[in-house]
Amino acid sequence: MADKISFDAPRGMRDFYPADMVWRNKVFDAFKAAGEAAGFEPYDACVVESYELLERKAGEEVGEQLYHFLDKSDRHLALRAEMTPTLARMVAQRQKELHFPLKWTTIAQCFRYERMTKGRKREHYQWNMDIIGEDSVLAEIEVLGAAVDALKRMGLKTDDFKVHVSSRKFLGSLLEKSGIPAEKHAQVFLALDKRGKMPDEEIAAMLKDGGLSEDETKATFAIMDLKSYEGSPELKELFRLAGIAGFADSLVFDIGVIRGLSYYTGIVFECFDTQGEFRAIFGGGRYDNLLTTIGGEPTSAVGLGFGDVVITELLKSRLGEGAVKRKGTSIGFMTEGERDAALSLAMRLRREGDRVDLALRPQKPKKFFSRASEANAAKAVFIGPDDVNAGKARLKDLATREEKEICL
Amino acid sequence: MADKISFDAPRGMRDFYPADMVWRNKVFDAFKAAGEAAGFEPYDACVVESYELLERKAGEEVGEQLYHFLDKSDRHLALRAEMTPTLARMVAQRQKELHFPLKWTTIAQCFRYERMTKGRKREHYQWNMDIIGEDSVLAEIEVLGAAVDALKRMGLKTDDFKVHVSSRKFLGSLLEKSGIPAEKHAQVFLALDKRGKMPDEEIAAMLKDGGLSEDETKATFAIMDLKSYEGSPELKELFRLAGIAGFADSLVFDIGVIRGLSYYTGIVFECFDTQGEFRAIFGGGRYDNLLTTIGGEPTSAVGLGFGDVVITELLKSRLGEGAVKRKGTSIGFMTEGERDAALSLAMRLRREGDRVDLALRPQKPKKFFSRASEANAAKAVFIGPDDVNAGKARLKDLATREEKEICL
Repeated sequence: MADKISFDAPRGMRDFYPADMVWRNKVFDAFKAAGEAAGFEPYDACVVESYELLERKAGEEVGEQLYHFLDKSDRHLALRAEMTPTLARMVAQRQKELHFPLKWTTIAQCFRYERMTKGRKREHYQWNMDIIGEDSVLAEIEVLGAAVDALKRMGLKTDDFKVHVSSRKFLGSLLEKSGIPAEKHAQVFLALDKRGKMPDEEIAAMLKDGGLSEDETKATFAIMDLKSYEGSPELKELFRLAGIAGFADSLVFDIGVIRGLSYYTGIVFECFDTQGEFRAIFGGGRYDNLLTTIGGEPTSAVGLGFGDVVITELLKSRLGEGAVKRKGTSIGFMTEGERDAALSLAMRLRREGDRVDLALRPQKPKKFFSRASEANAAKAVFIGPDDVNAGKARLKDLATREEKEICL
Repeated sequence: MADKISFDAPRGMRDFYPADMVWRNKVFDAFKAAGEAAGFEPYDACVVESYELLERKAGEEVGEQLYHFLDKSDRHLALRAEMTPTLARMVAQRQKELHFPLKWTTIAQCFRYERMTKGRKREHYQWNMDIIGEDSVLAEIEVLGAAVDALKRMGLKTDDFKVHVSSRKFLGSLLEKSGIPAEKHAQVFLALDKRGKMPDEEIAAMLKDGGLSEDETKATFAIMDLKSYEGSPELKELFRLAGIAGFADSLVFDIGVIRGLSYYTGIVFECFDTQGEFRAIFGGGRYDNLLTTIGGEPTSAVGLGFGDVVITELLKSRLGEGAVKRKGTSIGFMTEGERDAALSLAMRLRREGDRVDLALRPQKPKKFFSRASEANAAKAVFIGPDDVNAGKARLKDLATREEKEICL
């Protein structure tokens, strides 16, 4: 036998055993079904990108968190940390041929080399939905509607989560009315984004550093107490259309949603569990500079990023293990003499559309049924010599314990 | 506008635009459905692995073809070239807890840094199916049955492909009967694997280099003309069971299937299109040393690797673009006044289970219908002011041109 080497995945990377895949598929299937229902088209690209592209979009700070390397021709490559630069590249490459607006979706593995803290891995999957080339707030409605639909398909109820919505444009206009000029807004957004994460005194200090007077700082905090979006035509339209689309009860106005950095330009949103137990479930908003940062033509877009880690924790907590449905049929046999009959039955049920786990060797009934239960089969058939002689066996419902006859 | 940078994917890496995803999903959906029907459990792991693990399994030659790099803690990491080392690691890690036989499946992106030739990319996806811990030939039947099922689900007919089957064990016993001792077999397999790729004289020279006498070389070529598997009990059982399982007509005995290297120990197989136009569609066989190479307990296994590149070329060639099914409903509207009605109808149809692509802005009917056709929609509804007043619109079947009324 060879020397033993480590059986662990590399640090920060996840293995998905079949029991983990049950949850992952629950999440991914809902992503795909919701995107599909809302008419989004899937796209994908390789997880390896050019370093230059990723750094251009991300800035130096994120550049340092990239896994990157040179290939043998000295090409500087990296594992993507997010899908947006790749999306921008693909759209820019065919900007003349594509028919806008685009409604594109993907589930992308993304890497970020960061310090390991609780629940933070170095890779995750992120569901992306983007509508590119459409100014109307109907774009936000389509993206948010699909995200809410995905959560419901996973088994969550309206009471389990809320999408917090605000608008950069609205907040900017309020700041301007208070006499704070546009060139100071970036600094204000940056400070306000830290709210809840640090004491208000420190926020105030950040605002002062950003050139705000004491009065302006006071005015800024007063704006953050605003509870009504009446002054924002685009938010009014968003809530009205969400009412027509049937998910207004999942939205709440929250002027505190900022979404850091200078990336976003209009409506922004973040989804949280109502118990406030987890980090954001998804986030996104409208952004205008997707293509110009890499040299493409200007275009307006709405995007959403929805990671797999937080939602999986939330589902496990809210739904419990009982959320995993029993499915398929297990078939076993007692001696080699029933093997052919078992194989033949398995193929017949599969052709009829069933999922069939066929035992590959003779077993004692007890062992067979215990494995079928563990595998979460809905039904099981165990074939003994008498069954083959009689030409029929018993199909057992493992939940209800009911049995019915089945021909061999 | 910022400096323009390259919009190309890195060399050898593929972008999947929505039109490409139609084919990819056709292939992946068939992989998943066939694996699911046959009771295989999905697993997955990160594309980044430890270099040591990958090199241990692959040997130095493949080691050189790995994309590899050091992380900031000087961990030596690499992008996997195949899934098998990862499978071995995951199984070894839980060898005491897992219930064997395992039937596991995954679709894994794999990277190989090789010289670019026609149709060879530096990354591809590979469908893997493995049964671990079962000696019975029923394991081969389950793996092959699922692979054949996948091809049929993609729309191929029995006449389009054949799975060529042989056995290392059988070939070894024939060589032995001809007086060629076991220690020379590895060299013989290596030479025979090149058959069809180089002239028989060169094969003969390789055999001579491997220590075979002229008589032994002659005997070896005679063996390669064998057309019957009657002398192999395991191949007889394989064909018999394939008959019961209903796919014997997809199998053909071919003593020329070798599958290079010393990896395989029993039945081996490769699938080809019957017109001989493409490289192998899938390949695999029985192997015994999966876990021992990395220090785990010995166990027998059957595995299959099925790449996405050849099958996609084959499907495009055999099925043509017509294979892409029309689906879903496109909804458009003429003026802002019909927008709410269009949104409301879209959400209603989605709740009923339809895929609905809602236009996000008012359009002329001609433009709307042309886009709906391009998007391959099955049906389309265009709502004008009169429709809203009447409370109903016309749902058009884009294939048959038939119309029916639908309430708004």
